[in-house]
Amino acid sequence: MLISWKLESLGSQKSLLIQSSFDQKTKPQGSLGRLEELAAQIGKIQDREQPSLDRPSLLLFAGDHGVAGAHSVSPYPQSVSAAMLRNLAEGGAAASVLSRQLGWELVLINAGTLEALESSRILDRRIAPGTRDFCQQRSMDKDQYERALEIGADVLRAQYRAGCRLLALGEMGIGNSAAAAMIIHSLCEQPLQRAVSRGAGCNDQELERKLGVLQAARDFHGPLSDVDLILQTYAGFEMVMVAGAMMEAAALRVPIVIDGLIISSVALAAVKAQPALKDYLIFAHKSAALGHQAILDELGVKPLLDLEMRLGEGTGAALVLPILQSAVALLAEMASFASAAVPVRLNP
Amino acid sequence: MLISWKLESLGSQKSLLIQSSFDQKTKPQGSLGRLEELAAQIGKIQDREQPSLDRPSLLLFAGDHGVAGAHSVSPYPQSVSAAMLRNLAEGGAAASVLSRQLGWELVLINAGTLEALESSRILDRRIAPGTRDFCQQRSMDKDQYERALEIGADVLRAQYRAGCRLLALGEMGIGNSAAAAMIIHSLCEQPLQRAVSRGAGCNDQELERKLGVLQAARDFHGPLSDVDLILQTYAGFEMVMVAGAMMEAAALRVPIVIDGLIISSVALAAVKAQPALKDYLIFAHKSAALGHQAILDELGVKPLLDLEMRLGEGTGAALVLPILQSAVALLAEMASFASAAVPVRLNP
Repeated sequence: MLISWKLESLGSQKSLLIQSSFDQKTKPQGSLGRLEELAAQIGKIQDREQPSLDRPSLLLFAGDHGVAGAHSVSPYPQSVSAAMLRNLAEGGAAASVLSRQLGWELVLINAGTLEALESSRILDRRIAPGTRDFCQQRSMDKDQYERALEIGADVLRAQYRAGCRLLALGEMGIGNSAAAAMIIHSLCEQPLQRAVSRGAGCNDQELERKLGVLQAARDFHGPLSDVDLILQTYAGFEMVMVAGAMMEAAALRVPIVIDGLIISSVALAAVKAQPALKDYLIFAHKSAALGHQAILDELGVKPLLDLEMRLGEGTGAALVLPILQSAVALLAEMASFASAAVPVRLNP
Repeated sequence: MLISWKLESLGSQKSLLIQSSFDQKTKPQGSLGRLEELAAQIGKIQDREQPSLDRPSLLLFAGDHGVAGAHSVSPYPQSVSAAMLRNLAEGGAAASVLSRQLGWELVLINAGTLEALESSRILDRRIAPGTRDFCQQRSMDKDQYERALEIGADVLRAQYRAGCRLLALGEMGIGNSAAAAMIIHSLCEQPLQRAVSRGAGCNDQELERKLGVLQAARDFHGPLSDVDLILQTYAGFEMVMVAGAMMEAAALRVPIVIDGLIISSVALAAVKAQPALKDYLIFAHKSAALGHQAILDELGVKPLLDLEMRLGEGTGAALVLPILQSAVALLAEMASFASAAVPVRLNP
């Protein structure tokens, strides 16, 4: 259960030290804007005056969704989930390209695709060949839910032991925007119409059908408020593993870069269960997908980027690594007014 | 004069080819948002189907402003301009740190600081020890103005010959936010109150004094509409060199990354003189400085980043290099649905 992690509330000492260090650097005070805040946040999470971004790791979990097989809520066939996971492993997907370019270690985890995949580049952690159709029953049973949380945590822990000090999370799964919509509807008090995105690109007719399917699921399960139960009912295995990785990262004081719609929906659920988690999250980008803004509003956060992207895979999260590295480099390497002998303000 | 450059209007052939290439990649169509547009824009500028970002160069011009010496429009003494240029050369300024981290070649040009500086890392192109006080006369005479334009173009041309295919522009100069305010006031039909920023950090009283000084300058010169005359009257040498570098870069089909308030004010003036220039510009970030939004509105552009920065030196421009590199890498390296054997949309 999400509540079983013990998260520390973050003290402000290190962030105050970092802000004071920035105030002595050769620049007008506060003029690095959110870069200063980012360095202070990371320092606070890591309890370090000089934050570390060692071995940045993008953990990408993939899984299939029963609702997509039973009701065509996506314009793409379910076989795309496994095919894209293979494409990710072979280096041709967007997240593969960005990881190579920017220096993320891309860790691929099969949480439960319909088809099995053999690849030395993919961790096989399949709970089942896809979740069940959530119009007829819960996506997974309680045991599967708890195993998925644990697996996510285990993967994160191994990566932490290998030296990872910055985490990003990504996902792949045909149908998972339907799951995200149900989470948003349940936790943001938004009508389904305001929570349902076009996913991988539904046209108007497909969107209408998707909405009808989700309405039927809502009618079947009734209103839910328990966060674990909401995830067990609607989420995919990949999403629950993301939740486990997120909680474990926070417990180990690793900053967590949050991607767009799907990952944010999991983050919202996790924060509802454990409000202390929020301080560990860095929201990377505003997705163009409908429903994402509702999550951001509910959490009261403003992401770093708005590049009108809606691809998933952790691509939005991947893009902010250089910005975080800039924040940390500026803190470490800029001269102070004193060290550079630059005259200070006339009337401070 | 700005009109003397001959700029080509850009054809759409290469950008259409690039968009069509993105449409075949393993992702929902359009889901890379502005990254797709950026790759298409750069391809259009360079007339290449596969854009190049070789030897990205940040040209940073520094100069002093007579108005700052005569009327204290900045809370910092004028000697900061030269001291910061030295700090930039020694690697301790924000733009130095970001250039090292991100891979910009930082080229420092002394356009006219009050104090002379000896450094092998700074190109000495001083027109004069600072401009004149624009409350009493034009900042520079016509000959100085034309020489500054030529020097900016020369510096860019040398960098282009050395292999530079992406340009960013930065500046350093105590008082140059006052010059930017006069340009904004002249070209955006904004009252001075809406055009005057706090620069390096004026408090309310200092801002009030700055506004009074600028009002006096406005009264002395009357309304101006000729763009070259506006720059000659109010701009610093570093700003006119930036204008020359910008025009020359466009003539050589080099994409130009535009920083915040000061560089954008020069870009605005240059676009007013030559509207074809606009397609060559990539607006990096929205500055927190008052007046910047007026420029963006006047040009009808939306910058890539909004990180509440207001430091200058080209720091906002520097930050977008990885984003441009991502756009180009995704275009070059992503697999297509066909090459990766990923199933396509069910009802395309």
